[in-house]
Amino acid sequence: MAAPAPLSPLAPKTYPTLPEVAGVRFATVAAGVRYAGRTDVMMALFDRPATVAGVYTRSKCPSAPVDWCREHLKGGKARALIVNSGNANAFTGGVGAAAVAHVAEAAAKAVGAAPGEIFMASTGVIGEPLEASRITRVIDALIAEAREDALPAAAKAIMTTDTYPKMATARVKLGEGEVVINGIAKGAGMIAPDMATMLAYVFTDASMAPAALQAMLSKSVERSFNAITVDSDTSTSDTLMIFATGAAERAPHIEDAADPRAAEFRRALDKLLRNLAHQVVRDGEGARKFITINVEGAATRKAAKRVALSIANSPLVKTACAGEDANWGRVVMAVGKAGEKAERDKLDIYFGKIRVAHAGLRDGSYEEAAASAYMKRDSIEITANLNIGRGRATVWTCDLTKEYVIINGDYRS
Amino acid sequence: MAAPAPLSPLAPKTYPTLPEVAGVRFATVAAGVRYAGRTDVMMALFDRPATVAGVYTRSKCPSAPVDWCREHLKGGKARALIVNSGNANAFTGGVGAAAVAHVAEAAAKAVGAAPGEIFMASTGVIGEPLEASRITRVIDALIAEAREDALPAAAKAIMTTDTYPKMATARVKLGEGEVVINGIAKGAGMIAPDMATMLAYVFTDASMAPAALQAMLSKSVERSFNAITVDSDTSTSDTLMIFATGAAERAPHIEDAADPRAAEFRRALDKLLRNLAHQVVRDGEGARKFITINVEGAATRKAAKRVALSIANSPLVKTACAGEDANWGRVVMAVGKAGEKAERDKLDIYFGKIRVAHAGLRDGSYEEAAASAYMKRDSIEITANLNIGRGRATVWTCDLTKEYVIINGDYRS
Repeated sequence: MAAPAPLSPLAPKTYPTLPEVAGVRFATVAAGVRYAGRTDVMMALFDRPATVAGVYTRSKCPSAPVDWCREHLKGGKARALIVNSGNANAFTGGVGAAAVAHVAEAAAKAVGAAPGEIFMASTGVIGEPLEASRITRVIDALIAEAREDALPAAAKAIMTTDTYPKMATARVKLGEGEVVINGIAKGAGMIAPDMATMLAYVFTDASMAPAALQAMLSKSVERSFNAITVDSDTSTSDTLMIFATGAAERAPHIEDAADPRAAEFRRALDKLLRNLAHQVVRDGEGARKFITINVEGAATRKAAKRVALSIANSPLVKTACAGEDANWGRVVMAVGKAGEKAERDKLDIYFGKIRVAHAGLRDGSYEEAAASAYMKRDSIEITANLNIGRGRATVWTCDLTKEYVIINGDYRS
Repeated sequence: MAAPAPLSPLAPKTYPTLPEVAGVRFATVAAGVRYAGRTDVMMALFDRPATVAGVYTRSKCPSAPVDWCREHLKGGKARALIVNSGNANAFTGGVGAAAVAHVAEAAAKAVGAAPGEIFMASTGVIGEPLEASRITRVIDALIAEAREDALPAAAKAIMTTDTYPKMATARVKLGEGEVVINGIAKGAGMIAPDMATMLAYVFTDASMAPAALQAMLSKSVERSFNAITVDSDTSTSDTLMIFATGAAERAPHIEDAADPRAAEFRRALDKLLRNLAHQVVRDGEGARKFITINVEGAATRKAAKRVALSIANSPLVKTACAGEDANWGRVVMAVGKAGEKAERDKLDIYFGKIRVAHAGLRDGSYEEAAASAYMKRDSIEITANLNIGRGRATVWTCDLTKEYVIINGDYRS
């Protein structure tokens, strides 16, 4: 196992203070799943059944807890969430599924719920059987210690190769009332299945019907977690869930995601998920630069996103950013390989505000010195305007440094 | 520009002796397109019109010479091929197209042909206008010096960041006669558009109809150049062409690719293209390991290839190979993210002959030491058997090392 990495240079300078969300309490424990000397299991405990919505990995080989969550999401109600780090319980076959069921049953019994109201996630090493007893034996202690103000501790307990805990919060008007939205996430690689997986959990005291909550989450995810990439690798375990306790006073129950009273809530959720997603990118393995890729003027929004991801996932674009090289030829290459409609002679490329290529040629006013100076920044914005339509999309990524290779290659030889 | 890299540790120990192909002569010159002190333009000159077939980049932003070749391939006849290194003539707009036409017209006049019988390629920096005069002024010298035995010099003239020239040869029975097939290629990244591009040229003295030659080439390329990847990046300029002079004595003219008399020729062409493609991978930027990825038991051949490319392009699989880490969890991840049908509980994974995972679980007999020893080899074979169908595919790649990042990142800061 790799030694703990130093704090990412892109880490936030300060962490937010998280107000409490009425109706949910948190606890963490050092259960020794794999790590020693640190917390590795967290529980979120809902005083009354919370409405739940979720989005999971598209992997064809999902982890056992992802299978479990996807199945039980249909019920729309959650009484507890249990997450462990150190072991992904992925590629563990029937043994893995049995471990999940065993933990769910034990937790359900302890909190007086149905097993299908217990949600789970596991993050860490793939292919190692998860010893369910390491988790079941700490359930009573977790329940006894659960506190409304322990979400920051939960954010730390789910870390693997993350160099900092990821937290975000918002307070918004909802009808006559006011609700809190708190979120935590972990990442590291997007995704290093060996030691990392993208997990994010959002808690609110708003009152929402499951379908409304799911609709809002599914929409927000497209412009947040589904618009980031560290290395184009997708985990077996990626999970994003939102829980609504309904405990906020005076806030109306929202049955429909389009309810105009929920407009501020939707905007806040978008912003909060984007904030967490950016924090995941900023803690990407070996990351030294935060990179925003804008694609404009594509045939459709979908085409724009595909081109943007082609640029964001290109090892040559990412290494050029690491080298602070304003290498727009590689952006042309990545636009070209995306497989979407593009016309070379209409393409404009910008680094920040500097137009480096225009209408199929290097821009006449291009100055290498200005572009090179721009590339020295911590945050870089690359814009490709295809000038053939109105589709646009933005994705976020980080650079590809030799530290990424060293972290993931281990270089044992 | 990067300093010349040391010879790839995966370079061939010996280079083949290339017999002459009747009907074609070669010449090279130091034209100063960009490089100093080395040859950078090569010409292949056909004594009589040769039959020609080609396969080009799928990039939506192809280079000017790719546009030219694709258009004139319809004529099916070639009198000359001119290739320069140092400048890709890509993303150069109307200026780039004019440069190609200008060189073609000058060469056509000099050899007494139509411009559409002159084929071209350019490899090197993107977005810099190509000064056509640097090439047109050396055409007469190239024609005067063309020799049947100068193909190895041509292989060197088209190199960019390649660390060795790539050559292969075969001699096969064709009907009552015998023909020679010679091939050269360049690569480096697959593809670093900044300083590299995949180019390959094959010459034979067989006599073939254009459609037969194209059919054979298109089929062979799927299992050779379209089954390799260094970094998933696709050049604006990728080009593979074959020229048949028809000068071999006693060999029959082949009208149909399925002609049974051409069976040996087809097999030899497959093998020769695979050989050249492997040489390109072995000279991948920063490569220290040659990796063969087999996917078996997929739903279809196409699904198998997509899964194989997902594994081959995964930065986490490639860094694990660099680190000599038998990290089969990353292979599971890459199978899962490919988007093709796969069932976790049927998946088997092998490193060489060692089965590391079986039916959704770590193999019971798995020993880390044996797998780690295997990973120390120069050439690594990874096999994933999905066990759900009969589709199979093999692709080849190299590892992702910190040298790749350093070569492409330049680290100027």
